[in-house]
Amino acid sequence: MLTIIYLIAITAEAMTGALAAGRRNMDIFGVAVIAFLTALGGGTVRDIVLGRFPIGWTQHPEYIYLVLFAGMAAIPLARTIHRLSPVFLFLDALGLVAFTLIGCSVALEMKYAEPVIIMAGMITGIAGGVIRDVLCNRVPVVFRQELYASVSFIVALAYLLMSKLGIPEGITITTGFVVGVTLRMLALRWHLSLPVFSWEAK
Amino acid sequence: MLTIIYLIAITAEAMTGALAAGRRNMDIFGVAVIAFLTALGGGTVRDIVLGRFPIGWTQHPEYIYLVLFAGMAAIPLARTIHRLSPVFLFLDALGLVAFTLIGCSVALEMKYAEPVIIMAGMITGIAGGVIRDVLCNRVPVVFRQELYASVSFIVALAYLLMSKLGIPEGITITTGFVVGVTLRMLALRWHLSLPVFSWEAK
Amino acid sequence: MLTIIYLIAITAEAMTGALAAGRRNMDIFGVAVIAFLTALGGGTVRDIVLGRFPIGWTQHPEYIYLVLFAGMAAIPLARTIHRLSPVFLFLDALGLVAFTLIGCSVALEMKYAEPVIIMAGMITGIAGGVIRDVLCNRVPVVFRQELYASVSFIVALAYLLMSKLGIPEGITITTGFVVGVTLRMLALRWHLSLPVFSWEAK
Repeated sequence: MLTIIYLIAITAEAMTGALAAGRRNMDIFGVAVIAFLTALGGGTVRDIVLGRFPIGWTQHPEYIYLVLFAGMAAIPLARTIHRLSPVFLFLDALGLVAFTLIGCSVALEMKYAEPVIIMAGMITGIAGGVIRDVLCNRVPVVFRQELYASVSFIVALAYLLMSKLGIPEGITITTGFVVGVTLRMLALRWHLSLPVFSWEAK
Repeated sequence: MLTIIYLIAITAEAMTGALAAGRRNMDIFGVAVIAFLTALGGGTVRDIVLGRFPIGWTQHPEYIYLVLFAGMAAIPLARTIHRLSPVFLFLDALGLVAFTLIGCSVALEMKYAEPVIIMAGMITGIAGGVIRDVLCNRVPVVFRQELYASVSFIVALAYLLMSKLGIPEGITITTGFVVGVTLRMLALRWHLSLPVFSWEAK
Repeated sequence: MLTIIYLIAITAEAMTGALAAGRRNMDIFGVAVIAFLTALGGGTVRDIVLGRFPIGWTQHPEYIYLVLFAGMAAIPLARTIHRLSPVFLFLDALGLVAFTLIGCSVALEMKYAEPVIIMAGMITGIAGGVIRDVLCNRVPVVFRQELYASVSFIVALAYLLMSKLGIPEGITITTGFVVGVTLRMLALRWHLSLPVFSWEAK
């Protein structure tokens, strides 16, 4: 089940990455790169930081084909994707939770310390978007928009606590999805966001 | 032969990196860093993604000295390099092909899957330029200019096919250079480029 | 002693990172990320480049808590930190030297070649600031301001020479701090900087 959601999520992430590239007038190669990194960049950074080689997607060429295909498909479908943006926001929320849970479980299996497990989940969840924004030359939106990283943090924390308590993985994962997706949807609906720190030297 | 072309290529890349740093008014340390990363950054990213440690240039201090020297030499020679830019575009094309072939052969040797081999070649070929542009705070030109990444892709694909067919490496490498450099030169001459995806949400 | 200076330095770096995030109106999560990367990003890049896994801070959760706490604490203290900026410039100079010495000793222990040892020291010293600036979407200041990377270079070179000469580590480290911090303070006082390479194609 987590795998299916993961596949849907990387497809959706690749498509939104492609649209971001289109806003910067990139050529189709640039679109492919941004689509790839938006979808698989988070897992790549996590694997490098955890020293987990070979990196996940290098052992799954089918993921590579999938995200490249999705990125290319986004070009003719741009208008449709834009019209369906509520659907994509939902898929993106699913992906955020799926990536976070996968990242946590990888770090847990490698027996890293607790804060590292939480960070591994969050890196997997959000680094793809950060890379996309850096390559598109803008300040990463995850640092400035509605609750996003916070959702990843809460899901990671819940996963870690429930794992420590010995709760069966199925229940842990389901809880993560219910809590995470609901929170993200509510944040989008009511424009919930973290307090902003604005500082200007006088 | 490939090694000699490689050395010429990293020298040329370091010099063009230095000029890019000069356009941003960096100090000579910044020039050295950008020269280094433009020349050796692609191989560094490839080695990290493939989990291949120690990273190539750490075992070849002479490469480090060479690219730093080339970057520094570019400062008094800036006008000359600019006047010779057709020569540098040719050297850059040589480098693009050499980097791509080296990247593919490294991944092939490590028994990675086929799309990973192609990606390893392309990463080696183009990541240096991407890092240079991100540090100089602009959208990477390889995502927007004449055929560049596409040349790397075609060379990588040709290399992979010819290796699978058991064609001797000498012929494979020669073919890669002839095809790749010719294609890149034609693309520059006739301003061939990939279709651009321009998208603006309405 | 080096450890205590290190802890003071990562605290100070985290705080200045937080202020940089505040200038970009990031939310408190963004502040935490920038604080973390400014303080621990240099060591992370060094460990990845040297292929040294697990990465340092993953084995020291207390460092993670410390820099996150410091970053958060910087928010209410922003005005005070700004008023104390001479103090922070001094702490930053201490940190620059401490990071450089630690980076060199890590690479030396792993038996890397001499230029790699120097680069490991410099990466540890300055990469955190570079990452901070890239994520805040500006050209890295270490490439453009008063002697900073040069101080790291001189400290690294001195460390390497004195180690080769078999001078006891205590003396080497003390010399590094005296020379490095003095040089940095003088550079700030008299606005010493490396020559700038300004280049505009005509």
